[in-house]
Amino acid sequence: MATLLIDNAAEVVTLAGPARARVGEELAEPAIVAGASVFVRDGLIEAIGTGSQISDRADAETVRIDAGGMTVAPGFVDAHTHPVFAGWRAAEYELRVMGATYEEIAAAGGGIRNSVRRTRAASDDDLAAIGLRNARVFLEHGTTTIEAKSGYGLSVDDECRLLSVIRRMGIETPLEVSPTLLGAHEIPDEYRDRPDAYVDLVVDEMIPRVAREGLAEGCDVFCESHVFSIDQARRVLVAARAHGLTPRFHADQLTRCGGAELAAEVGAASADHLEQLDDPGIDALVRGDVSAVLLPGSVYHLGLKRYAPARRLIDAGAKVVLATDFNPGSSPVPSMQMVLSLACTQMRMRPCEAFAAATINSAYALGRGDRVGSIEPGKQADLVLFDAPDHRNVPYVFGVNHALVVVKRGVIVADRRP
Amino acid sequence: MATLLIDNAAEVVTLAGPARARVGEELAEPAIVAGASVFVRDGLIEAIGTGSQISDRADAETVRIDAGGMTVAPGFVDAHTHPVFAGWRAAEYELRVMGATYEEIAAAGGGIRNSVRRTRAASDDDLAAIGLRNARVFLEHGTTTIEAKSGYGLSVDDECRLLSVIRRMGIETPLEVSPTLLGAHEIPDEYRDRPDAYVDLVVDEMIPRVAREGLAEGCDVFCESHVFSIDQARRVLVAARAHGLTPRFHADQLTRCGGAELAAEVGAASADHLEQLDDPGIDALVRGDVSAVLLPGSVYHLGLKRYAPARRLIDAGAKVVLATDFNPGSSPVPSMQMVLSLACTQMRMRPCEAFAAATINSAYALGRGDRVGSIEPGKQADLVLFDAPDHRNVPYVFGVNHALVVVKRGVIVADRRP
Repeated sequence: MATLLIDNAAEVVTLAGPARARVGEELAEPAIVAGASVFVRDGLIEAIGTGSQISDRADAETVRIDAGGMTVAPGFVDAHTHPVFAGWRAAEYELRVMGATYEEIAAAGGGIRNSVRRTRAASDDDLAAIGLRNARVFLEHGTTTIEAKSGYGLSVDDECRLLSVIRRMGIETPLEVSPTLLGAHEIPDEYRDRPDAYVDLVVDEMIPRVAREGLAEGCDVFCESHVFSIDQARRVLVAARAHGLTPRFHADQLTRCGGAELAAEVGAASADHLEQLDDPGIDALVRGDVSAVLLPGSVYHLGLKRYAPARRLIDAGAKVVLATDFNPGSSPVPSMQMVLSLACTQMRMRPCEAFAAATINSAYALGRGDRVGSIEPGKQADLVLFDAPDHRNVPYVFGVNHALVVVKRGVIVADRRP
Repeated sequence: MATLLIDNAAEVVTLAGPARARVGEELAEPAIVAGASVFVRDGLIEAIGTGSQISDRADAETVRIDAGGMTVAPGFVDAHTHPVFAGWRAAEYELRVMGATYEEIAAAGGGIRNSVRRTRAASDDDLAAIGLRNARVFLEHGTTTIEAKSGYGLSVDDECRLLSVIRRMGIETPLEVSPTLLGAHEIPDEYRDRPDAYVDLVVDEMIPRVAREGLAEGCDVFCESHVFSIDQARRVLVAARAHGLTPRFHADQLTRCGGAELAAEVGAASADHLEQLDDPGIDALVRGDVSAVLLPGSVYHLGLKRYAPARRLIDAGAKVVLATDFNPGSSPVPSMQMVLSLACTQMRMRPCEAFAAATINSAYALGRGDRVGSIEPGKQADLVLFDAPDHRNVPYVFGVNHALVVVKRGVIVADRRP
C-alpha cells in the first residue's frame, strides 16, 4: 500500500462541492482549508484536514512532503490543447508583431497549413518526441490532465497517426490525456478549391475510422469565416455524435457566426474561444448546458483586445472553463498558471473563480468530474504544491512557474525542490 | 586561468555594435551568429565565432557546455526593479481584479503604504532573506544585472536599511546590482498632511546621507498626480544630482504631467513608465538624450489598456529600454522573458528590438554599457543559454522560463539542465 502525506500546507484549495460543474457564485467558493494536510493511499485521496487525524495515518513507509508555506490545489485540467506539431512558427510570430493578421498569414499558406506540411513530413519518432516533451512541460507546470487535439495531419492516415502519438503521451508519461479528433481544423492544400469534398472525407472516412479504432473521445471542428461554415461544422459534429464521439468545438472566436447556438443544437460538451459571444449566445450555452471554454492566451498572444465575456457568462450561470489552447500559432503557452493570470487581469475573474474553472469545471467538461478536479476523499490524487503562501499568488505573481511539486495518481511526477 | 566554452549554439545573439545605446533601426540589428561558440577566460569573453578557432582554445581544464539547439544571449539587464519588500499584496490584487483602481487602493491606505508599514516592521534578517531570494529568482530567469530601488522605508534610517539589503543582494549572490534611492516613492503616513515637509526630509537629510555613505548610484522619485508633483520631483532630482546621484524617475505613468520634459531638464539617465507620453514628450526625451524605460508588466497587471508608445519612440530615435518594474503592487513579474513577450505582443516591438532594449540599451541606461549587455571580446561574460532554437522563441512561447543555464562573470550561477 503506497501512501503519501502532504503535511501542513498554508492553504489547501480543495474545490470540494457539488458533484457537477460550478456556475455563478459557486465559482467563487474554493473551499480552502488553512493549515491542512492531505493523505493519499494507492493513488487516491484518503483524507484531508487539519491536525493529527491526518498525519497519524502515516507510517514508516509513507512518503512525506513538508508543505509549509505552500498552497496545494488539484492538478490543472487543461480542456483545450493542440500538443503534437512539428516545428514552432517563430517567423510568423514576428510577422504578426509587425502587423500581419492571423487571417492574412493563413490566406498566404501559413498558419495551420504551415504546421500541417511540416507535421506530415515528420517521422513518427520525431512526432512522438515532441508529444512526450510537451507532456513533460505540462506536468512541470502543474497540469495533470489535458484534452489533446489532432488537426495537423488533415488526411485520414495523418490524423490517426497524430491520435496515436497523443495516446502515447498518456501511456509513456504520467499525464492523463483525453484525445480529440480535429480533422476539420483547416482545409488542406489539396482540397483548397473543394472544401465540401474535404468535409465529406472527415464525415465519411475519418470519423468512422477514428471511432472504430477507439482513437478519440471527442471531435472538434474549427468553425470560422475563413475555415468551416456553420453548416459544414454541423455535418461534422452530427456525424461525430452518431459515432459516439463527444462534440466540442472552436466557436465564435474571430467572428460571431452562431457557434454557441450550434453547440447547443448538437449537444456539444463545450464551445471553445467565444471571444465574440453576445447575450443571445450566452443564453444558448446556458440553456444547452454547454461548457464555455475560454482561451485568453490566444487573445493576448495575437495582440487582440477583445477577451471572451467571462463576467457576463458567470453572471448568467454558464459553466465557465479555462484552458491554454496550447498550439504553435495563436497560443504558444503551456502553463495554466499564465492562463489564470490572464483570466484575472484581463477578464476580471477572481483567483478562486479561475482555479475552479481550471480544475473542477474543466474536469466535468472532459467527462472526468467524478474522478479528478478536486481534493476530496475517494478522488484521484492529482495535486500541485505551489511555492506560494496564498492561492491568489499563482495568478498574481506572473510569468513564472510556481509549481514546486506535482503529484499524479499519488506519485511525484515533477519536483523542483532545492 | 578559469575558462568556459559554450559550444555550437543554434544562435548567439551578440548585440555587438556601436559603443552606445541603440536607437531607431539599429534596435533591429541583433548581430546574430548562427552555429557559434563563445570562449570565456577569467570572467571575460575572449572570443566568439564559428568553427575550430573558438573550440581549439579549450583545454582539459575548460568547463564545456554543449549549446546545441540553444540560443545564447547576453544576460538580461533589468533597469527598473523594487526587489526588497515585506509581504506580497495578494488581497489588494483580488480587490483590483474585482474593480478597485490602483489609486483607490492607495487612497485607502493600501498600495505602497501597505508595503511600507510591513517593511518597517520586518527585521533586517527577514528583509535580507527576501532580497536574497528575489536575487536568485532574477538569476534563474536569466537576469544578471538589476537596478534596485529602495522606497518601502520612507524614513532616513529605513531607506538606508533597504539600500544596505540591496547591497547585500549584490555581495551575497552573483547578481550585479545598481542601487537607487527612492525615498520619494510615496508620502508616508506620518507626513500625509505636510508632503512638502517630507520632500524637505528627502532633500535635506536622506539624499546627503545616502550619498555620503555611498549607498546608491541613482535617485528616483514617483512623479504622479496622487504622489509627488513636478515641482517636488524637481527638488528631489536637482538635489540628487548635486550630491552625485544619477537622476532616473517614474514619469508620465497614469497621467501626463510633464515628466518627460523634467527628465530632460535635470539630465536624468532615464524616464520610466511613460504610458501617457505624447509626441512633445517623445521629442523632449530624444533631445535630452534620456533613455525611455518601458514597463509593460504594470500595464498588463493593472488591467490597463494603454501601453507606452514603443513604436513611436523607436521611430523618433529614442533610446528604448525594457524592464520588469518588479514590485508587489503593480508589476509582480521578475522575468524579463515575460516582459519581452508583452513588448512584442502588446507594444509591437520585434523580438530583436526587445532583446536590444533588455540588454545593451539597459546596460547603457545603468552606466554599464562598456562592460555588460552584449557578447563581445573583452566584455564581462554574462550569458544566458535559452532552451530555444531561435531568439524569437523567448517572447513567442510565453509564461515559461526558457533560461536553461545562466552565467555571470564566467561562472555558471543557474543550471536547470536535466
